[in-house]
Amino acid sequence: MPLPSPLPERLQALLGPDGFTTDAAECLVYGYDNSRQQAQADAVAFPATHEHVEALVRLCREFRVPIVARGRGTNTTGATVPVAGGVVVSFERMNRIVRIDPDNRLAVVEPGVLNGELQQVLRPLGFFWAPDPTSSPFCTIGGNLACNAAGPRTVKYGSPRENTLGLRAVDGTGASFRSGFWTSKAATGYDLTRLLVGSEGTLALITEATLKLTPLPAAKRTLRATYADIRSAAAAVSRIMAQPVTPCALEFLDDEALRLARQHGGDAIPVAGALLMIEVDGEEATLDTAVAAVSRAAEGAGLVELRAAADAAEVDTLWAARKALSPALRAIAPMKINEDVVVPVSRLPELISGLKAISAKYTIPIVNFGHAGNGNIHVNLLYRPDDPQQAAAAPDCLAAVFDLVLSLDGTLSGEHGIGLAKREWMSRAIDPVSVALMRRIKAGFDPDGILNPGKLLPD
Amino acid sequence: MPLPSPLPERLQALLGPDGFTTDAAECLVYGYDNSRQQAQADAVAFPATHEHVEALVRLCREFRVPIVARGRGTNTTGATVPVAGGVVVSFERMNRIVRIDPDNRLAVVEPGVLNGELQQVLRPLGFFWAPDPTSSPFCTIGGNLACNAAGPRTVKYGSPRENTLGLRAVDGTGASFRSGFWTSKAATGYDLTRLLVGSEGTLALITEATLKLTPLPAAKRTLRATYADIRSAAAAVSRIMAQPVTPCALEFLDDEALRLARQHGGDAIPVAGALLMIEVDGEEATLDTAVAAVSRAAEGAGLVELRAAADAAEVDTLWAARKALSPALRAIAPMKINEDVVVPVSRLPELISGLKAISAKYTIPIVNFGHAGNGNIHVNLLYRPDDPQQAAAAPDCLAAVFDLVLSLDGTLSGEHGIGLAKREWMSRAIDPVSVALMRRIKAGFDPDGILNPGKLLPD
Ligand SMILES: Cc1cc2nc3c(=O)[nH]c(=O)nc-3n(C[C@H](O)[C@H](O)[C@H](O)COP(=O)(O)OP(=O)(O)OC[C@H]3O[C@@H](n4cnc5c(N)ncnc54)[C@H](O)[C@@H]3O)c2cc1C
Ligand SMILES: Cc1cc2nc3c(=O)[nH]c(=O)nc-3n(C[C@H](O)[C@H](O)[C@H](O)COP(=O)(O)OP(=O)(O)OC[C@H]3O[C@@H](n4cnc5c(N)ncnc54)[C@H](O)[C@@H]3O)c2cc1C
Repeated sequence: MPLPSPLPERLQALLGPDGFTTDAAECLVYGYDNSRQQAQADAVAFPATHEHVEALVRLCREFRVPIVARGRGTNTTGATVPVAGGVVVSFERMNRIVRIDPDNRLAVVEPGVLNGELQQVLRPLGFFWAPDPTSSPFCTIGGNLACNAAGPRTVKYGSPRENTLGLRAVDGTGASFRSGFWTSKAATGYDLTRLLVGSEGTLALITEATLKLTPLPAAKRTLRATYADIRSAAAAVSRIMAQPVTPCALEFLDDEALRLARQHGGDAIPVAGALLMIEVDGEEATLDTAVAAVSRAAEGAGLVELRAAADAAEVDTLWAARKALSPALRAIAPMKINEDVVVPVSRLPELISGLKAISAKYTIPIVNFGHAGNGNIHVNLLYRPDDPQQAAAAPDCLAAVFDLVLSLDGTLSGEHGIGLAKREWMSRAIDPVSVALMRRIKAGFDPDGILNPGKLLPD
Repeated sequence: MPLPSPLPERLQALLGPDGFTTDAAECLVYGYDNSRQQAQADAVAFPATHEHVEALVRLCREFRVPIVARGRGTNTTGATVPVAGGVVVSFERMNRIVRIDPDNRLAVVEPGVLNGELQQVLRPLGFFWAPDPTSSPFCTIGGNLACNAAGPRTVKYGSPRENTLGLRAVDGTGASFRSGFWTSKAATGYDLTRLLVGSEGTLALITEATLKLTPLPAAKRTLRATYADIRSAAAAVSRIMAQPVTPCALEFLDDEALRLARQHGGDAIPVAGALLMIEVDGEEATLDTAVAAVSRAAEGAGLVELRAAADAAEVDTLWAARKALSPALRAIAPMKINEDVVVPVSRLPELISGLKAISAKYTIPIVNFGHAGNGNIHVNLLYRPDDPQQAAAAPDCLAAVFDLVLSLDGTLSGEHGIGLAKREWMSRAIDPVSVALMRRIKAGFDPDGILNPGKLLPD
């Protein structure tokens, strides 16, 4: 559907020849994301400045045209699919690192900066930004903030909500504001920063972010623990998290994940009922004690082998299983459903055994791995779309997974967000008063509902 | 002003004979707080359950009667003063620790639990809750959450916003909801938890909180550094915060604060241009390295003496100056204005020298100390109300302090909040679009404006 005239002309004039397009091919490639869902955008805009974004939103609002913010489209939930058409706003030209201020442990960036790019610039200065999605080399800070994206390090260092000091943004009326502060602490009004973090482009467009930096630990140690069965590994996770030394990674692979990884990664990958990768970091002199503490907690019924890497090569060997997993999954199941549910760590044994039962009931293989220290498990339903029975059972199987998670005091997503894919589940996961409050907040930021319509909140 | 009939009768019936009073003496003592401001409440309610709170809000809303949530009234900003009359809701009977769950590093508490009480129960289990206001023995968790209250430990362990997993609450329409999750990580909808934290009872009444616990460090070391002048001490703060070992306390006293403390605390308190108290914590084996790292950073131009405490008695000696300060201040200046401004740590030298200049200009003594690691300085204007010149100059002097702070990229409050005292400053500290968004959020939670009217947001 073409944009109402004269909106395209005015956007073109605003953004310049490289800054705006209605070309069908461009609209196509900016209409899908890593969810494999797709819709046709009516135009794609490439603002270069905050002022561009402000003017763009005002223009779109005048014509009641939807706006979908986009980083690099690596999200897994369809959060950037323009289901209601309109203008996709790609932040790829707003990719400047504005300022790094080590004295105040902060960095100011435009939203299009890639996570990995920022980490590289920070490393020689002795800092990092805590959120570390596996997609780090090709996802943006804006996308990370909007999804509250996280990674292995989150168990110790927190998610974007714990690592963002302030934002500059434009709301759905085209009004500009700054949330948060340049300080590491404040008690001055409502926390708009954390409200925007995780709001998936539905409340405001982020045009600048002030990120809290963390000093790089001097050293790290890697341990691998294998267990006879999943319950023993899950119990070890609880024990590790109940003692004082918080690991900087505590990753889990179940038996199916290991079997798959071994098929693709070879003999370096152990045969076991379950595997934990455990990392601790800090000053070199502190690490013997830290390793001893997590090792004590990792030991217990069901432990098969606990191995510490002696050098960098052995670290790679120990991580081999985890690394082999993604290509393995991609190869065997192009149509996997990948959820990232989260439960309290003590409920992990119930979660994993419940998932086994669901897998058996629906005869759909389920492979589980993920950030066990946060109780955040990537649940992969490996169904074959060409098997009519499996394809038909997949939605019920997924429903059973979410029912299980919610019954264990868990929630739908630990880091991927809701997007298009899970929005109809929101009314199950969140009570009706909270949903109503979220809607009122949405209306306060975006009275005409032009920002990423059809996402996050249920219909 | 008496409450409209039959509201008192219905509230009395709801809450029982001990649960509600319109007695003038009771209304008087629940009408003031640590700000020394005061107003007359029309009634005081003592709900014992969530259901009481829900029914109470519905009744008050029916009659459009204001509701002021109250913990123990230790806030410094007039946040609990019932300026529009109505019902003060004291949470003192909702003081149960509902559940402590070490495996999931969380505690579930009612809002009336005292901070210090919770810490005592947690200690034998090997945990603490990070927020540690000095008022810990006599302030409530509900008050801590509503103010985003903090303390020395915040520099390493964070404020309530970083240490709250979820809340149960009742909004201004009497509707109940749960925000947040039982997990340490989530990306499922807007962050209502952080929105309520720091909202000073203006959005909802908190009836239960799920708090994130932190493992108690095994050991701690205390250092005291004195400097020839304030700039040297402030520069040392920046250096300490720019290296990897984050102290668990980094407190500052300026020359005036030291002089005062010495008058009251005696010779144990050193004469110096400024003083830093530095603490590091962790596993015992790690502390030599940690002490070495912060010591290196503390050294530099202007350092007079760096002393490490050898034992518990010496820790007390080193802390003597900081401890002597509160009684000293109370004794000499009953009418001090105590602000808790915050600036980026690198701007501390400019803040402190600017404050000296302001003190000279208005001939009002200013004493500065506080949580330097967060750039959070308690600025005490010691004016004499019986000196007409000083009393007249005090408001301008305070305005000059806030102007200075804002010009240094700082903000009005690091931990005390806004309340009544600073609300008219909000429009200076926060841009108009943000203020408008906050108002719309307020209207979304409390459409009739009955929750703590006249607080936090400017008129
Ligand atoms: C191989 C792979 C591995 C991954 N691993 C992880 C992982 O470990 N952890 C994890 O959490 N995720 C992971 N992801 C998912 C994804 O990378 C993250 O969600 C990432 O944050 C998305 O960033 P993006 O730049 O691609 O954003 P997009 O996908 O383009 O957008 C994501 C959301 O952010 C919004 N948005 C983007 N920019 C802005 C802005 N400036 N203002 C307002 N809203 C904006 C969009 O509207 C959308 O709602 C992975 C993805 C892939 C493909
Ligand atoms: C000697 C002394 C030392 C102090 N030191 C510090 C310090 O180091 N750091 C610091 O941050 N503060 C400090 N304070 C200030 C004060 O103690 C804190 O702000 C504390 O959090 C207030 O708790 P309270 O229970 O007294 O709450 P109150 O003063 O009763 O209330 C504070 C705010 O919380 C709201 N509120 C209370 N309960 C609820 C609820 N259940 N739901 C919704 N809203 C609610 C009230 O409406 C009000 O807005 C100090 C105060 C004193 C007197």
